Amino acid sequence: MTADVQAAPTATRQIPDTMRAAVLFGPGDIRVIDRPVPQPGPHQVLVEVAMCGTCGTDLKIFDGHFPQTPPFGEFTPGHEWAGTVVALGESVDEFAVGDRVAIEVHAGCGRCDNCIIGKYTACLNYAKPGKGQRASGITVDGGFAQYAVHDVKALYKMPENISFADAVLVTTAGTGLYGIDVAGGYMAGQDVVVVGPGPIGLMTVQLCRQLAARSVTLVGTRDSRLELGARLGATEIINARETDPVARVRELTGGDGADWVIETSGGPGVPDQCIAMTKRAGKIVFVAFYPGPVTLDLSAAVRSDISMFTSRGEGGNNVKRAMAMAAGGGLRGEELVSHRFPLEDIAEAFRVVRERDGDPMKVVIVP
Amino acid sequence: MTADVQAAPTATRQIPDTMRAAVLFGPGDIRVIDRPVPQPGPHQVLVEVAMCGTCGTDLKIFDGHFPQTPPFGEFTPGHEWAGTVVALGESVDEFAVGDRVAIEVHAGCGRCDNCIIGKYTACLNYAKPGKGQRASGITVDGGFAQYAVHDVKALYKMPENISFADAVLVTTAGTGLYGIDVAGGYMAGQDVVVVGPGPIGLMTVQLCRQLAARSVTLVGTRDSRLELGARLGATEIINARETDPVARVRELTGGDGADWVIETSGGPGVPDQCIAMTKRAGKIVFVAFYPGPVTLDLSAAVRSDISMFTSRGEGGNNVKRAMAMAAGGGLRGEELVSHRFPLEDIAEAFRVVRERDGDPMKVVIVP
Amino acid sequence: MTADVQAAPTATRQIPDTMRAAVLFGPGDIRVIDRPVPQPGPHQVLVEVAMCGTCGTDLKIFDGHFPQTPPFGEFTPGHEWAGTVVALGESVDEFAVGDRVAIEVHAGCGRCDNCIIGKYTACLNYAKPGKGQRASGITVDGGFAQYAVHDVKALYKMPENISFADAVLVTTAGTGLYGIDVAGGYMAGQDVVVVGPGPIGLMTVQLCRQLAARSVTLVGTRDSRLELGARLGATEIINARETDPVARVRELTGGDGADWVIETSGGPGVPDQCIAMTKRAGKIVFVAFYPGPVTLDLSAAVRSDISMFTSRGEGGNNVKRAMAMAAGGGLRGEELVSHRFPLEDIAEAFRVVRERDGDPMKVVIVP
Amino acid sequence: MTADVQAAPTATRQIPDTMRAAVLFGPGDIRVIDRPVPQPGPHQVLVEVAMCGTCGTDLKIFDGHFPQTPPFGEFTPGHEWAGTVVALGESVDEFAVGDRVAIEVHAGCGRCDNCIIGKYTACLNYAKPGKGQRASGITVDGGFAQYAVHDVKALYKMPENISFADAVLVTTAGTGLYGIDVAGGYMAGQDVVVVGPGPIGLMTVQLCRQLAARSVTLVGTRDSRLELGARLGATEIINARETDPVARVRELTGGDGADWVIETSGGPGVPDQCIAMTKRAGKIVFVAFYPGPVTLDLSAAVRSDISMFTSRGEGGNNVKRAMAMAAGGGLRGEELVSHRFPLEDIAEAFRVVRERDGDPMKVVIVP
Repeated sequence: MTADVQAAPTATRQIPDTMRAAVLFGPGDIRVIDRPVPQPGPHQVLVEVAMCGTCGTDLKIFDGHFPQTPPFGEFTPGHEWAGTVVALGESVDEFAVGDRVAIEVHAGCGRCDNCIIGKYTACLNYAKPGKGQRASGITVDGGFAQYAVHDVKALYKMPENISFADAVLVTTAGTGLYGIDVAGGYMAGQDVVVVGPGPIGLMTVQLCRQLAARSVTLVGTRDSRLELGARLGATEIINARETDPVARVRELTGGDGADWVIETSGGPGVPDQCIAMTKRAGKIVFVAFYPGPVTLDLSAAVRSDISMFTSRGEGGNNVKRAMAMAAGGGLRGEELVSHRFPLEDIAEAFRVVRERDGDPMKVVIVP
Repeated sequence: MTADVQAAPTATRQIPDTMRAAVLFGPGDIRVIDRPVPQPGPHQVLVEVAMCGTCGTDLKIFDGHFPQTPPFGEFTPGHEWAGTVVALGESVDEFAVGDRVAIEVHAGCGRCDNCIIGKYTACLNYAKPGKGQRASGITVDGGFAQYAVHDVKALYKMPENISFADAVLVTTAGTGLYGIDVAGGYMAGQDVVVVGPGPIGLMTVQLCRQLAARSVTLVGTRDSRLELGARLGATEIINARETDPVARVRELTGGDGADWVIETSGGPGVPDQCIAMTKRAGKIVFVAFYPGPVTLDLSAAVRSDISMFTSRGEGGNNVKRAMAMAAGGGLRGEELVSHRFPLEDIAEAFRVVRERDGDPMKVVIVP
Repeated sequence: MTADVQAAPTATRQIPDTMRAAVLFGPGDIRVIDRPVPQPGPHQVLVEVAMCGTCGTDLKIFDGHFPQTPPFGEFTPGHEWAGTVVALGESVDEFAVGDRVAIEVHAGCGRCDNCIIGKYTACLNYAKPGKGQRASGITVDGGFAQYAVHDVKALYKMPENISFADAVLVTTAGTGLYGIDVAGGYMAGQDVVVVGPGPIGLMTVQLCRQLAARSVTLVGTRDSRLELGARLGATEIINARETDPVARVRELTGGDGADWVIETSGGPGVPDQCIAMTKRAGKIVFVAFYPGPVTLDLSAAVRSDISMFTSRGEGGNNVKRAMAMAAGGGLRGEELVSHRFPLEDIAEAFRVVRERDGDPMKVVIVP
Repeated sequence: MTADVQAAPTATRQIPDTMRAAVLFGPGDIRVIDRPVPQPGPHQVLVEVAMCGTCGTDLKIFDGHFPQTPPFGEFTPGHEWAGTVVALGESVDEFAVGDRVAIEVHAGCGRCDNCIIGKYTACLNYAKPGKGQRASGITVDGGFAQYAVHDVKALYKMPENISFADAVLVTTAGTGLYGIDVAGGYMAGQDVVVVGPGPIGLMTVQLCRQLAARSVTLVGTRDSRLELGARLGATEIINARETDPVARVRELTGGDGADWVIETSGGPGVPDQCIAMTKRAGKIVFVAFYPGPVTLDLSAAVRSDISMFTSRGEGGNNVKRAMAMAAGGGLRGEELVSHRFPLEDIAEAFRVVRERDGDPMKVVIVP
């Protein structure tokens, strides 16, 4: 370590040896047990987790259907979390003990072709922690626990006016924003459609308003969610059970279709609709996973010179950008938190998520 | 003409044969005379001009120092204008008589290498109207007149809530926005500096706020203009006569410098300062002309991997985008209009501009 | 017309009043009849057609399955043609009578949102010639005739060392090159897969070699075509009937997959394979039309951060670029011409194309 | 360390405890002394240096005029080197002992804003090795020694047909190629000017030919170097002492100017010439440092919509790309090596470089 790193980089506050942590023991079998509190390595900090969101991807992880997760019996999931820094690893001076922080899920290996050019959500050493890749709650232990370690390169300080609930949703927003970034990032004055009024979709509606889209049309199937979207800034809402979204988007755009369509629903028939509602030379951003293969009119996309982008996570400074937008009042995350459960009740929390009991929007765990 | 064009494309309302128009007769010698009202060609409309802004470039044009303008005695300048459509040329159905419209200055030839790829402000047939290139008020007759023709490809309908004064400034904004577009268009959550609190700078401050910049620092030398900038959204103002802007920007950005620096002042020493206040790998956008050669530390730009972009006008859908932002309430143009003169008093108006009599911001002509 | 246009822009050589031209009279019913020789409008030239290629799209047009073609009985198809300029329209000085020229199919309207930013293959006034849009042989009369008119903005002078057969294939190459351009254009040192050893695929193989790809793997189902691909520069060929192309591409790329996959085959199962053989964060370019909806694992594309681009034609200076590559010896087009027919035998030519009689590669008409 | 890393990652071959290394003891005072052989850390390898190039930047470093170098008495410069891997740090399985490797100079910290998005030559922790930033031979010990350590993320395996002399020049090429990459990377069929027939310029000439530029005009002042450029692929050479390069480039490009101008000379008057010889909407790439401030007609750049990019080193996969081009026979590096000196004669080598004794092109040290 050299003189450019501050004198006492490993300051700590009282940290116990063990903690309560949820561990996945088999498909759908999550239990809260005692585990050792992890130690931050170089370039890492230890965080006392204040809140960890649940997500549709967690259900796939719980069922053992998500690629590259650690084995049952050893793995603590949870990939949307925020908390307070309690210990600093070697060389860390970007953060201080006591800082409130939000995360990006992915810390790339930093040495593969993709990480070298900044595309670390597509790290070629994905799920190889020995090479440095860490996707918190996906390929290494995550935030359904009292403590978690995280790399400083995927960590963002929370401004004072941001709550932990806001911060959890800032991470959610990062996924949508990275998709927008990959597709060019410049939608000012253009017509945007967001499909899927779940947490990613609702954060994306707000992002598009922040980016000065002329119109942001939200498409979904549940009125309660669509109405929340309207309160959060959607200029038009379409319930696809009642109104043909393709026809309505065409109508709203003078026949041309939308400049951008951002698909967050994961509905199998939706990608084909996205093509049909996109303006010629327009862009589609897919920020969703689908239950199986998808069928779509690819010829129509070719005939219309449509480009299609994807985002699987919050890459490229986009959580930092989203945090700044939230600090400026432009992103409201806490309003999406519909249910809070203590860590010990995590199994019940996921029952609520899975069964959609009480129309949950964002269910969070408070360790 | 084919069936896809509407039935009565050439509807007109009562139009006189002659009009009052300002004509440049020599350096600084502008007179208002009678001229024939022009006829719209194919793809053009005739507009009754409601307002035409003056601009620093007009002073260069008046003095005969701007390249490629038509000869003295034949030329009506004025390149920031808005008005009402009064006649449609062949094939035009994008507009109707009675539509209120704002313009882009440049209509490219549509056939050179640059126009083919959409870079028509850099048309290779610049100042060759026979090839189709038209820069209103620069290479062909402009808006210091009761009527003017314009190509539909450079014309934008004004929403109801936009005044002509707003519309004139939307054209101004288009120049800044095109520079931002050329540089990538994506500044959300980043730190931006705008140098020069003139009309372009003040519209650019608002654009950057609309694009969700984290901070927008405005640098200038006149407090009245800086204070107007603060009212229009600048998060920080720096009077460069009192405070070293480079040191202050470094301080505001934790030492790193600004992600974007947009220079609109035309001050000879400013480009060098821009390099010094830009973050490594950051971007500078030059939207200004300088009185002579500029001296700068190019090595510093290279050492810091800085990219430098330029904008000479409102290209690439950016007036359309800016108009949408204005319609949404995000751009306030009318507040910049400090002086209004009737067309007959145009010489006096330019005296005010040239002598900065009464600290004029945007001086407009109302024909 | 102004002084910047040359003195005698409408010089002509002896041109008859009528010509022989193929006209589509119904599904599959093409006949060669006498038609008036067309007149070049402003910005246009009249070309004596030397050669016109046939293409899979022509079969769809012949069967009435391609959108936006003119009505039966009035329409001369043919969209890949080259010839000699014989008359100049008003304002044209870019070309002289006697110039040998190749074309781009699409001339955009020049006034819609997309044309303004250079995306004219996605013209929003597609198939509205009154607005200026012209896709030769698709929305207006094309090259299966002795003469055709064309806009100068979509016309390219042929260097001396380029034959008409080369030139026809340069237009073909333009489609692949535009797709590469839209996807970023920079593949030097990267691994590329081209699927489909038809004319577009074989020209694309050569383009990728010209762009310094590290490897260019060609996938197809006919050995003769694959072997031609190897002669034209493919570094590896895969017969997908014998070898699993996904497994083989993974093997060739050390498990990572290809940086670029360019799909030109139109095979319904191919897009899904493309996703499976693309490197994480890689790019797919679709330059094909499919017989019906396509089913693919979109989740895999999202999980791998893959971007997907499309090209339906030769936009954005890419025929100019391809012509320069051909002039430098980097593109061999004439080798792809397998069959030549006189215009009067066009029906027989298309029987050969449709029935693949004699394994035709590129069948051309010589009017 | 986990199972994804190979069993014996720290295999070594016989390595001495001390080595001969050049150390800078004061301005111009370089001496060869015994130093301990360094140990590779995690993510690093130890390389036995086979060859290390000298560079103009080394002269600035020697004179103490380059920012952020380590103190006199402790620092081994040398930033263009290649050699053979002799020991592997923890977790390294990308390389094996015995691999021949070339380097990129810069390994970023991996945790700052810029490194996160892949812009590590602009690392915000530049010259802070405690944070992980390492610029070999600039901010940490480099290659004027028998052994050097290097991060695997900045290391590239040499194909069998590449010599160490080629490899040293591949690193040189990487700087030019990164500049081209930053500016878009797509120059096929376009007209390019390279100014400065030094090593970077001559490698860039070859790169531009590899990227299918239509023409590559090389501008310089020494005939011997220009003639070497012509042998390496320049399509036109201009001796600026005899011919006005601006006028000549305009003439060669039909008056339009070059699409790309890449400036590698560092001549104070050259940047202004670059602007004057660039096509409207064209690109300039600066890959040079200047002896002092530069004066240029920035207004002309603005009026012509010219974008200006910079490169200070070999970022973003570009050494990998260049290595592939070299392996394919497209880059000839060894021809540029004019002088070879043993390490013990390094002072004499730099005298030759400084005094241009014997018109040296690339002078290399063979430790």
